[in-house]
This record gives sequence, C-alpha cells and structure tokens, in this order.
Amino acid sequence: MKRPTILVLGAGYGGLATIVNLQKNIGPDVADITLINQNDYHYESTWLHEASAGTLRPDQVRYDIADVIKSDKVKFVKASVEGIDIPGKQVTTDNGVFSYDYLVIGLGFEGETFGIPGLDKYALSIANVKAARQIREHIEYQFATWSMEEVKDDSRLTIVVGGAGFTGIEFLGELGNRVPELCKEFDVPQEKVRVICVEAAPMVLPGFDPELVEYAVGHLQAKGIEFSIGTPVVEATPEGVKIKKGEEEFDFVKAGTVVWAAGVRGNRLIEQTGIENMRARVKVEKDMRAPGHDDVFIVGDCALLINEEVNRPYPPTAQIAMQQGVTVAKNLIALINGQETETFVPDLKGSVCSLGEDDAIGVVFGKKVTGAKASFMKKMVDNRALYMLGGPSLVVKKGKFNVL
Amino acid sequence: MKRPTILVLGAGYGGLATIVNLQKNIGPDVADITLINQNDYHYESTWLHEASAGTLRPDQVRYDIADVIKSDKVKFVKASVEGIDIPGKQVTTDNGVFSYDYLVIGLGFEGETFGIPGLDKYALSIANVKAARQIREHIEYQFATWSMEEVKDDSRLTIVVGGAGFTGIEFLGELGNRVPELCKEFDVPQEKVRVICVEAAPMVLPGFDPELVEYAVGHLQAKGIEFSIGTPVVEATPEGVKIKKGEEEFDFVKAGTVVWAAGVRGNRLIEQTGIENMRARVKVEKDMRAPGHDDVFIVGDCALLINEEVNRPYPPTAQIAMQQGVTVAKNLIALINGQETETFVPDLKGSVCSLGEDDAIGVVFGKKVTGAKASFMKKMVDNRALYMLGGPSLVVKKGKFNVL
Repeated sequence: MKRPTILVLGAGYGGLATIVNLQKNIGPDVADITLINQNDYHYESTWLHEASAGTLRPDQVRYDIADVIKSDKVKFVKASVEGIDIPGKQVTTDNGVFSYDYLVIGLGFEGETFGIPGLDKYALSIANVKAARQIREHIEYQFATWSMEEVKDDSRLTIVVGGAGFTGIEFLGELGNRVPELCKEFDVPQEKVRVICVEAAPMVLPGFDPELVEYAVGHLQAKGIEFSIGTPVVEATPEGVKIKKGEEEFDFVKAGTVVWAAGVRGNRLIEQTGIENMRARVKVEKDMRAPGHDDVFIVGDCALLINEEVNRPYPPTAQIAMQQGVTVAKNLIALINGQETETFVPDLKGSVCSLGEDDAIGVVFGKKVTGAKASFMKKMVDNRALYMLGGPSLVVKKGKFNVL
Repeated sequence: MKRPTILVLGAGYGGLATIVNLQKNIGPDVADITLINQNDYHYESTWLHEASAGTLRPDQVRYDIADVIKSDKVKFVKASVEGIDIPGKQVTTDNGVFSYDYLVIGLGFEGETFGIPGLDKYALSIANVKAARQIREHIEYQFATWSMEEVKDDSRLTIVVGGAGFTGIEFLGELGNRVPELCKEFDVPQEKVRVICVEAAPMVLPGFDPELVEYAVGHLQAKGIEFSIGTPVVEATPEGVKIKKGEEEFDFVKAGTVVWAAGVRGNRLIEQTGIENMRARVKVEKDMRAPGHDDVFIVGDCALLINEEVNRPYPPTAQIAMQQGVTVAKNLIALINGQETETFVPDLKGSVCSLGEDDAIGVVFGKKVTGAKASFMKKMVDNRALYMLGGPSLVVKKGKFNVL
C-alpha cells in the first residue's frame, strides 16, 4: 500500500504549525510530507511593523525553516506556488509540479486596496518581510535625500499611514519610537517630520475596548502622531494622498511615504481553485477542511472562521493560525488512520496591540492591560509563537527580552 | 589697541588644522578667532567612499568640532557662508555677518561634472557626508525594491561609477566588499549585481605607478568589478548613462545607481570674490595667501599649489591641507606680530589608495606597498589625521584599528 502524500503550502504560522505537529506525532513511514514555501525562511508576520519602521532588522524577524523541520520526516522545497489544481490533485510551482493526497493551504494574506486608485502603485504595503524592508529603506532614503538636497522638500518627511486597525496602530507605535532616531541619524529637525494616520472608519482599532483605544490614541498623539479619522483615502498619487474630509470636501496631503495598512485578504491563488471563497478566504468546515473538498485543509489568513457567539469572523491572528495547525495535523493523522476528524475550537488567550518598544494595550485572560505590563505581555506572546514552532532554542535565538 | 579678528571659513582638514595650530600657539588675548562651518561636526572627506558604500556608518566618519576647539580661544559659529566681500572685509552667512582682519578660506571641494548633460540631476556625488549617506541609502533602497518587486528590473542592481581616479577606485574597493553583504542582507543573487567603472581617460589612477595600477585593477576585477576605460560618459538619464565607445559608437548602460566620482573643483563662492581663480581654485602665493590680498589665506581644496619639480599641481589631499594649516597659523601669528611670513613646503610622505577593508596600493616614503601592508599604512594615515587635529583621545574614539 502506497503511503499518502501530504503537501503543505506556505510556512507561515498555520502551515509551519501543521508541519511541526505532524512531524511530532507521525512515524517516518506513515506519510510523505512536503512543505513548499517561496523563501527558505519563516518570518514573523506579526512583527513586520517593526521591520517596516526599522526598529528591528529583517534578519531579526525571520528564521530558517531548516531550523524547525525534521528532515527525516519532512521534505522542504523552496518554490513559489503558481497554481492549485484541485480536481487533478496537484500543485504547480516555479520549481516543479507536486501531486498530493492531502493538501494544506496556508498561503497567507495579501493587501487589499479596495480599488482605490493609485494605491497599488504609489503606496507601500506591510505585506511580507521583503515589503517591510522596502518600507524601511524607503523612509531612510527620503530622510537622507532631504538632508542632502539644497532646496528642501519637507513633504519627504511626511509619512501617511492608511488604516487605524491593528497593523496600522502597531506600525504607528514603532514610528513614534523610530522617528527621533531617524532625525538624529539623518540630521533632520524633528518638527519637520509629520506622521499622519488616515482612517475611513469612524473609529480606531474597531473591536477593542474604548478605554484602551483612548489610551492608545493619546499615547501616540503624545509622540507627535496625527489622526484623521472617518476620512477615507480616495486616491494616491506620486505626491501623496487625497483624503475625503466631508461631502464635497477634499484634502491633499503631500507625503514622501504612503504606507497602506488598511485591509487584508486571502491569497489570490485561492480564487482560481474553484473553492468557494470571499476575497480569497474560505469559510472552512468545523474540522478546517474546505467545504466539498475532503482532502483540502485551509489554515491561517486564507481560512474564514465564524465566531458564532458574536456571528463575526475570528480575527486572522498568529495565535489562532497556530492552533489551527495543531488541529489540522491531528485531523490529517485521523484521516490516514481512517478515524473521525475533530472540530477546531479556538482558545482566545487575549489580544495585545503594541504601541512601540515599551508600550502596548490589550486584553489578556479577560483583563485589560496597558503600558509596560502590556508590552511585556506582547513580548511573551511573540516569544510563545517562537516556542510553539521552534522550541526553547528558537526563543533563545530570536526571542524578545529587552523588557521592563 | 583693538585685537585683530581672524575668521576661518570651513572645518575641513585645512581650516581645522589652522584653528588647532592657532589655539596651540596664541594667547587668549592676542586675537579674536572665529571658526564658521555649516555643520557642527568635521567629517573625514577621505573616508567618504566608505560611508557611501555603507562599510562605515556616517557617525563613524565625523566628530564634533566642539571636541577639538578650545572655547576660551576660539568661537565656533554654525552657519552656511553665503558670500565673501573681500573689499568690505566681511563674510555673509545664514547666521549673521562677520567682519575680519584676517580671513582663512577653507571651504573645500565640489563635484565637477564638466557640463555633461544629466549628471547634475541623475548622478549622485561623493561630495560630503550627507551626500555619501544618500548614496548608501539609494543603493540599499534599490536592492530592497528589487527583492520586493514582482517583475524584477535587474538594472536596479547595476551601479555605474564614473571615474577611475583616487575617489572612484577607493569607492569601487569598498563596493567590492559591500556587494556580497548587500546580497546577503537583501536576498539578492550576487550574479545579478553589476558594478561598472567608466573612465574617459585612457588609464586608471593617473600618476600612480603602473605596476600598482595593474595590481589594483586585477584585484577589483577579481571582486567582479568591470572596467570601461577610455570611454567617456556623454549623458546621464533617469535610466542610466550613455557611454562613447568609439568615433560613432555609443553604448547605453541601464543602471539604478550612477555615482559620479570623476572630477572636483573648488567652492563656487571663490568665483564671486574677485580673487583670480581656475575652477574656483586659487593659485596661492608661497605663504598660502591669495595673490594681491595680504589678509586672505586659502587652504585645502580651494588652494592650487604648483609642484615646481614636475610643473603640475600637488594633489588636493588631506595630508597637504593639514600641513598648510600649520603654516597658515604660523603666518597669521607672524602678521599679527609684524614679522615675515614663511613659505609653505609640502612634505609628501606618500600616497595610499584603499581597495577595500583589507587591501590597498601605495607609495610610502618612496616604497611601493600593496595588500594588507598597504591597507595597514592607509589606516595609519587615517589615524594620523585624527591625531593631528584631535590628539590621542580622538584616535581612540574614531580611529581605525581592525587591521592585520
């Protein structure tokens, strides 16, 4: 009898958690397991705001996949997925075609610009580690150029952040710490720098406790960050963004850097699979399988999971993605053994939004936390992700310890 | 009797050496000495190739002027010089107007583009520490963008260096070391990167011993650097440079970065003084005064000094500029005391051209040196400049020791 082939696409939190839990619980002769990822490293997508602002170096937010997988049980292939053929049960990549018996799709998120003209072309997006690095270099280049040029264009020093959700706020928190460093490094007077958050919705951090939101906005404002809330970006140009301030009232903000952090969607490859989806997200079955496809699991940002208590989707977090990986690994083993799959039940330990190196807000085990304590909790959460995927040695190597 | 006022413009090697030697040899009541400089720091203009390539950080190539001057004897004013009124004996700056009895002009070099179209606009120049920093950031931004973009434009990774003189070669030497680092940092395959040196003259490093030149070119080629010699750049565009290869033969090199290192001239302010000059350089008298102006000294790159042995100008080096400062300080004191000025006699200890961290070529005390030994000598030369202007404490703080 031929061993079944398990193909896992993507080494993000969901895909890697699936792999790690498979290799822990399966013998080497039970299945052929292959992990396909476009890079030979995993990066912490929850830390990208720090790499984008420049408060962490790119190499601090990623680690080699080889450090985490057991090569006697899992084969790693560095390749970009180009197409998923569900009826044919095979995946096309730029490095060969791979057949599967069971497929796990963990291809992550993409930025969503909602068709706003110019954003695709003129805004940067905190989409992945390479994009984050480009944002960092873009901002540094603007500062260096301002410092150098004879006729100074102060708008080079304006950074517009589109979106006051989780990513936008965390990025603003890092910028609040990074701007004074940049000013020192590039001989720029700090009063020349503007950081403006523009949000279409009438609120900051929807879903967060209003008291915590107030804390966050106040602390970011104290760092000099401006907020323009309830005012959608309607266009981006090479010079900046056009913002709708009222019914017929528009404002143009000249800005050398525009970072779009206002929306995410699933990976576009999902849309070509024939699997039912909404903005490339699949409303998965209770056991994390795609509806109507018993051999396909979806994990992480491509999976849409409804929290029935509030009838809204769970947020696409690393915490939930890793928990999904645990369940998917179990369910794969169950399927191979001809057993029943189990239901995925998220265990929400809380949510902490960083406001920079030493500040944060959040709810942890039902308790509101702010400031240094919340920041400590945030680093615990970050280190926990390392621990769950790579064990204590990875925490020592890549963990965050400069706390309290 | 009123104390005379000595005004020194520029805190480069020549100006700072004048100040340091004045404050060492003059009592506090003998003269009012003011140093004007646009930055509150001195930078090592002989180290700019390292800051440009990114092998040294900008803060490693500069130090505070306050660390070097004695405030009881010298007043420092941070200001940009806007005009020099020789008949009115005053200097206009963006921070006030200053009268003088004796003036020392040490305003340094500017890049010379020889009227080649587009260079001013599309090429970067290793002109000062801010320009060097911009070059570094420009290159890093190109690498980050290449790494990020979906349709890759390989010309982003092409760096054209215009000029195979001292500055061009030293910059190429640093790039030879820096490119592998950049490739690692930004996930760029090294074979995608091109570094091309384009020189109009038929030779590399004119004035250097041919055997040393051969060594330099061979070692740079071994690091992957290409040479196009005897082929002038005739135009720069946003996409790259047009190179004349033959009578009617042209080549266009697409390049994300063009650095122009092919010519220097004196500061443009000299041209508005009425003092006779050639490309903003003044052919000074034997005692370093401007011809026909007994109260004006010129030091450093704005001074043109003929080596009568070979009937060619001495090269504009830090070594000679600092020696000039010693003589100018002596001559200022002589003038105040009603004594005769002395003739400036350069003492050429040698010349070493760096080829990167661990390699160099040069002639020191009449002997040819290459490789690690020459590199060591180069660092000695660099540390000597620190020692002469700031004493042993500055060598400890900013010196180069990672040798042999």
